Formats: sequence, structure tokens, C-alpha cells
Amino acid sequence: MAKGFKRISGSVTAAKGFKAGAVFCDIKRIGTGKGSNKGRKRDLAIIFSEAPATVAGMFTTSQVCAAPVKVSVKRTEQKAARAIVVNSGNANACTGKQGIKDAEMMTALTGHHLGVTAEEVLVASTGRIGVLMPMENVANGIAAAAQVLDSSKEAGDQVAEAIMTSDTRPKQVAVELTLGGVTTRIGGCCKGAGMIQPGMSRTGARPAAGLHATMLGFITTDARIGQAALKNCLEAAVAQSFNRITVDGDMSTNDTVIVLANGLAGKVAAKEISKFQEALNFVTLELAKMIVRDGEGVTRFVTVRVHGAASQKDADAAARSVGNGSLVKTSWFGGDPNWGRILGALGASPAKIVEEKIDLAYSAPGEKKLTYALRRGQPTDVSFATLCKCVAAKEFDLHIFLNVGRHEAILYASDLTEEYVDFNKGDVSDPSSLGG
Amino acid sequence: MAKGFKRISGSVTAAKGFKAGAVFCDIKRIGTGKGSNKGRKRDLAIIFSEAPATVAGMFTTSQVCAAPVKVSVKRTEQKAARAIVVNSGNANACTGKQGIKDAEMMTALTGHHLGVTAEEVLVASTGRIGVLMPMENVANGIAAAAQVLDSSKEAGDQVAEAIMTSDTRPKQVAVELTLGGVTTRIGGCCKGAGMIQPGMSRTGARPAAGLHATMLGFITTDARIGQAALKNCLEAAVAQSFNRITVDGDMSTNDTVIVLANGLAGKVAAKEISKFQEALNFVTLELAKMIVRDGEGVTRFVTVRVHGAASQKDADAAARSVGNGSLVKTSWFGGDPNWGRILGALGASPAKIVEEKIDLAYSAPGEKKLTYALRRGQPTDVSFATLCKCVAAKEFDLHIFLNVGRHEAILYASDLTEEYVDFNKGDVSDPSSLGG
Repeated sequence: MAKGFKRISGSVTAAKGFKAGAVFCDIKRIGTGKGSNKGRKRDLAIIFSEAPATVAGMFTTSQVCAAPVKVSVKRTEQKAARAIVVNSGNANACTGKQGIKDAEMMTALTGHHLGVTAEEVLVASTGRIGVLMPMENVANGIAAAAQVLDSSKEAGDQVAEAIMTSDTRPKQVAVELTLGGVTTRIGGCCKGAGMIQPGMSRTGARPAAGLHATMLGFITTDARIGQAALKNCLEAAVAQSFNRITVDGDMSTNDTVIVLANGLAGKVAAKEISKFQEALNFVTLELAKMIVRDGEGVTRFVTVRVHGAASQKDADAAARSVGNGSLVKTSWFGGDPNWGRILGALGASPAKIVEEKIDLAYSAPGEKKLTYALRRGQPTDVSFATLCKCVAAKEFDLHIFLNVGRHEAILYASDLTEEYVDFNKGDVSDPSSLGG
Repeated sequence: MAKGFKRISGSVTAAKGFKAGAVFCDIKRIGTGKGSNKGRKRDLAIIFSEAPATVAGMFTTSQVCAAPVKVSVKRTEQKAARAIVVNSGNANACTGKQGIKDAEMMTALTGHHLGVTAEEVLVASTGRIGVLMPMENVANGIAAAAQVLDSSKEAGDQVAEAIMTSDTRPKQVAVELTLGGVTTRIGGCCKGAGMIQPGMSRTGARPAAGLHATMLGFITTDARIGQAALKNCLEAAVAQSFNRITVDGDMSTNDTVIVLANGLAGKVAAKEISKFQEALNFVTLELAKMIVRDGEGVTRFVTVRVHGAASQKDADAAARSVGNGSLVKTSWFGGDPNWGRILGALGASPAKIVEEKIDLAYSAPGEKKLTYALRRGQPTDVSFATLCKCVAAKEFDLHIFLNVGRHEAILYASDLTEEYVDFNKGDVSDPSSLGG
């Protein structure tokens, strides 16, 4: 099947009518004076739509939920939005009532400079937890960012930079498709690195099976689509992308994905909704995979594919037990095809497992040619050297056939490395360096 | 309250009528000849009771359960046992029908050399998963161990050594108490290090809330106690000790605790059962804590104390979410009092959490004087330097007051270090070195 879209360069400014601006305003309060700020990584960004945009969002299901999440959840209940303001360096989480006031003030200030209402602005933050926002710096940043709004590709690049925390590189994707005969675009950027195992829902309320980043993702499109349809599309897209990744199994207080659709290009008619969905799925999945590949200390990208589980919940639980198991992850780091640890993780999972039924196999990413390590719970005659070769690749697929049912799950996972530990142990002699 | 027992030196040979023997028999098949085996760590041990002993055991609830566990579970259904045979270096897990035959053969060989039946012998193994037992070496080892059975303290020491894998030191405890006016002893040894988050039950069957080592523990006593009472006492003892520890959140295929009570000393009358329980609790808890302190790469021992949870399940879930959180554990390693990560872990847990109700505090181990970091979800005015001092200690207590109910849980946890990762990444150039 031919894809109904093509990948293009760009991100949040790729679609018609979107501008962005990003600046350094010293959210971490490390700067000493105006002179010293040159060359600093940007830490605050505004994404602006020239026309009112349909809005949808997915948010962390953590019960400890940051102020900007609480504010933005409400704003997605409205029919239209105009802008997103986002900062890195401070999560505005566990900041009480003042935190909520500060998040609301960020939207009010942004609205003021853009000539829209506070309610038309969504807000997102990432960084250290439990520190009040440096509102003077933030206010200066918002004023400065609003001044430099631009629809260029570079402006999009700068947003991707501004939201980075422990990320080593910006993450952005854009695609082009035709809807109703009109060229339409979807573009986005995201950040991740640590505290990554999102389990987002529309309202931030926990779904029946609560899953488990700070990950932030912002997507813009000039497609014309109703809010209910956009919410459904985003939920489906997140379910197969951001909610299927893990770096360290820790769900963040701030996970947020927001999409703005300003309707300045093609209309998503009922018969073309699947085309739009396919393109949105691609954008979100590419962004999600970038988060895992750039996770803190990550050297290997492993796609865990569980087949034949007794239920959907079991398929997910089995995948997460393997993808988050410390001993499995360290063996991936070492390039050790230790299937005993994989079986150990499966045995400890709440999913129904029958040791004598399990097949384990490896493949190159997305390839159908499988190298079996185990069949029916027993080692095949494949050599240790061959298995070592399978797991020596930077990226590989691990196939787990439980053979007790028909349900499947995919989890995009990574190894656990000394660099991850070193990074996250922090440096208490420099509290400002400590991550959220 | 005065303790009803006193600690003495010794372990599995402390109680009357118990002998032990341990040898090196090259379970890992690394030896080249008889000459080269001198000075090697012992890897096979026998514990023998001169009189028939009441037996009880607790076993892993992993669905992927090693052959020796399957065999020993059945043997605890019998009224009496005489011996335990245990090896390190090979877990005899994921070894199919041959694995079961090998485990049974180990009991038969041991029985043969001791003059008892196979059914009177229990078996336990720890080491690499998925490799068949080197039965020739094992048979030689059993014969040799049976030859050197001895009731000395040194013989007990050698058992503690023989069961070590990645442990850096042997772990043993013994106590003396008076039952019915007769001096009675309880002694034990255990091993742990990695794959440590036991969730054991009597039958290896998963309890309602399946929890999550290889940890092995062996306890002997000359108390006279009925089997039902002994099983209850062991279950209660394990519930407050081995089932309350975590190193890496990975439950093993081989977790086993066995107690033998040969009745050669004091009788546990109904009115003295609590005295026996208290002493058994002490022995198991001391052993369990030794496992955490000697966990792979562990530099800090943290007792997580959850208070005020809405249910027992919630209290446990909250404690495990914090005690197993990668970001919390790396911050402990770094000595970073990052309460934001603790709140993040709580928020992501399935336990009911109300951010605005949470108090967090630190104390020295077991001390009542608390230093509060958070009250009602908000930072106290305690200085960063003071909090750093709290978490700089090698051992400290973390108190989490959820303030939403009356339930409590304790989890003995550790930090996550680069040494843990380095150790577990293995060395694929030397497959025999790879851990289970």
C-alpha cells in the first residue's frame, strides 16, 4: 500500500499560518548578565496560529500532575486555541497554588503579546520539579519570543531546541498529504530523554489500566477538522506512539502532547479521515522513536513485539515487564543475548505465561526473517555467536510469542547504561544542574 | 520490651543435630584439572539433620519457575525432611524435563549418600538460567560434600560461602532462646545480590497480589514444632523480611526459603509461639537486610516507610514505586535529596495519592526524629544542605506520609549505581561468566 503522505523537512512551522519564536530567558537562573547569555540554549518558545485552531491534547495520567498540565487540560475543552507557550528548565510541578497562578500568568502574558485571550493559550513546562517559576525571567522571555515570531523552518528548529532538557538533539518531523485536493501539512517536534514511559489520556484522568516521561510533543496542521475527530485522531496516534515507549519506566508529572489544526488548507472529510490518521500516526511514531533513541545514556533501540498474549492487558504487561527490566536492559547494553533474563521478566509479569509455550526470536528492525533463540521454552540449536550478532546491532526487534492467545503489543525500549546512572545521580554541589 | 532471644555466632549448624558440608565441584565447568581447583569458592553444599525434621518452604511466585523449586515445593507437602542440597553457578531454570530429572537426581544422590530417601531431601539452585546441570560434576560434589558433613561453625560458614554468586560476602545469623525451659537455637544463611525482589508464597502459586531475586535462604532450628505452625511462622517471617526487600525489582525464577525444625531441643508450646515467631522474624529480617546491603553495586541502604495509605495494597504499591524507581534510585546514589522524583514515582503508582496531602521526611535508621522535606505537598523551610546531609548517610529511612488512610508498608531498598550496570552488562567474550 502506497503511503498517503510524503515526508518533508520542517516541524511546527511547516503548516500554513503557523509561526514560532524561541528565546533564552534563563529559566534556570544561571545567567549573570545580558552579556553572558549569548550562545545559550533557548529555553522558552511560543507557537502561534494566525487563525483560530481546533485543539486536542493528551496528558500525563500521573496523580502528581504539574500546574501547566492542569491549566492546559481545561483549555482543550474549548473549541479553539491560538497559541502554546512552553519552557524548559523548570517543570512547574509540585508548586501548589502559586504554580497554577504562574502557569495561568504565562498564558495571560502570551495572550497579551499576541492579541488573543489567555484562554486561547495552552502551556507546557519541563525541567526540575518543586521549584517556583522565575516569573520575571519568564515574562521577559514571553515578550521577547512574541517579538520574533516567524513562519520559517528555522523558527520551528528553534522551538525544538528550546524544549530540550537532557536531549542531545532536537526532534522534529513533518509530512505533506493531499486532503480534498488541497496540499496539507502536519509538522511537530518533541523532547524526551529521561522520566520516559508516558501513559497519557485526554483529560489527564487515569484510564482503566493506568500506564506509565517528561515528554512534550507539539503538532501543528493546516488541516480542517472538527474537534471531536481531532481528539479521536490524536488519541489513536498517541496510543501507537508516545504511549508505546519507555526509557526508564518512570512516568512524568508533565507529559503533554498538543495538536493545533487551523483549517487553512485541506478539509478532512469523513472518507479521508484514515488518510489524515495515517499521516498523524507517522508523525507521532517518528517523534516517539526519536525520544527512545535519544534517551539518557541510550546505546540500543529495541522494539519488543509481543504476540499471542491472552489479552491486550497481558500483551502490554509482558512487553513492559521485559522492556523495563533492569537485568534485561543491562544485558542489552552488554550485547548479551541472555534469554534467561527475558524469561525471568516474563515470569514475573502479571501476564499469563506458560514457559513451555514461549518462542523467542530476533530480527533486524521490521524484518520478517527471524532468528529463534527459544522454541517452546527450549533453546534452539542456534549458536551463541549468532545470537550475540543479533543483539550487537544498534537497533533490533525482539519477538516474544507467548502462544496463549491472540493479542499483540509493541514497546519501543532501550538499554540501561552507566551513562544513564551517571547522568541521573546529579551533582549536589550544583543544585541548579539537578534534573526534574 | 526485652527481646526473648539473644544473638549468637553461627548459622545452619548452630542448632543441635545439624551438620553441613560444602565443596567445590566446578558447577560452572571452569576447572581444568584437580590441581587447579584448590582455593576455588565452594559451589555445592548439603545441610543434614540427624533426626527427621518438620519442613516448611516459601518459593518464587514467578510463572517461570526453576526445576529445583518445582521439586522442593512438593517435598514441603511431606511431614518430614532430612536434608537440603544446594548449588550455585547454575539455576537449573528453563531446562525443561531434563531439568526436573536432574533436580530429582540431585535429591536421590544426596539421599543415597546420607542413607535417607530422595523424598526426604530438598533441592535449591542459583546461577545462570537455561543451561543444563553438569551432572557428573554435581554427582562428584554431592559425594564429596556428604563425606565432610560436620556440625562445626566452620561447616556452616562453608554453606554460606557455597551459595554465594555475585554476593561479596557470606550472610548468616543465629539466635538462642529458651522454649519450655530448654535452650533452643535458630540459625540460617542466605544469598542474594541481583534479581532481587522476592514475592514468595508457600506453594510457589501466585497470591492475589503477585509481588516480585534469586535469593536463597536456609534456616535450621532444634525447636520442636508442628508442620502447620512452622509453615505459618515461616510465612509470617518471610512477609516481614525477604518479601519486603528489593535490589533491582526483578523477581527470580529460583527464590527459595526453607526451614528445617528437628525437635531436638525446646518445644514450641502454644503460649510460646510468639516467642519463636519473634526470633524467627529477627533471623529472617537480618538475613534479608544483608541481601540489600550486599546487592550488586549497592552503596546505600534505604528503608522506605509508607504511612497513611488507603489500603494495604496501596501502601505496598507506593513503597515499591519509590523503591524501584530508576530516577529515585540514581538520585540516592548521587546523594541528591530530589523529592520531586519521589513525588513523581508516587504519582505514577497505582496507589491513591493526593499531592496536597503528602508529607516526606528523613531520619536515621529506626530513629523517631524526622527531618521534613515536604509537608502537605509543599517544601518546608529546611535547607538543601540539611536534606543533602540526610541522604548522604550510607543508611537512612525515608518516611512517606500519604495521609489518605491508615495502612503502612516498609520496603528495604537500595540505590542504582554504575557498578550495577557494569556488573550486569556481562562479558559476552566469556559466556561462562554471564550471570543468571
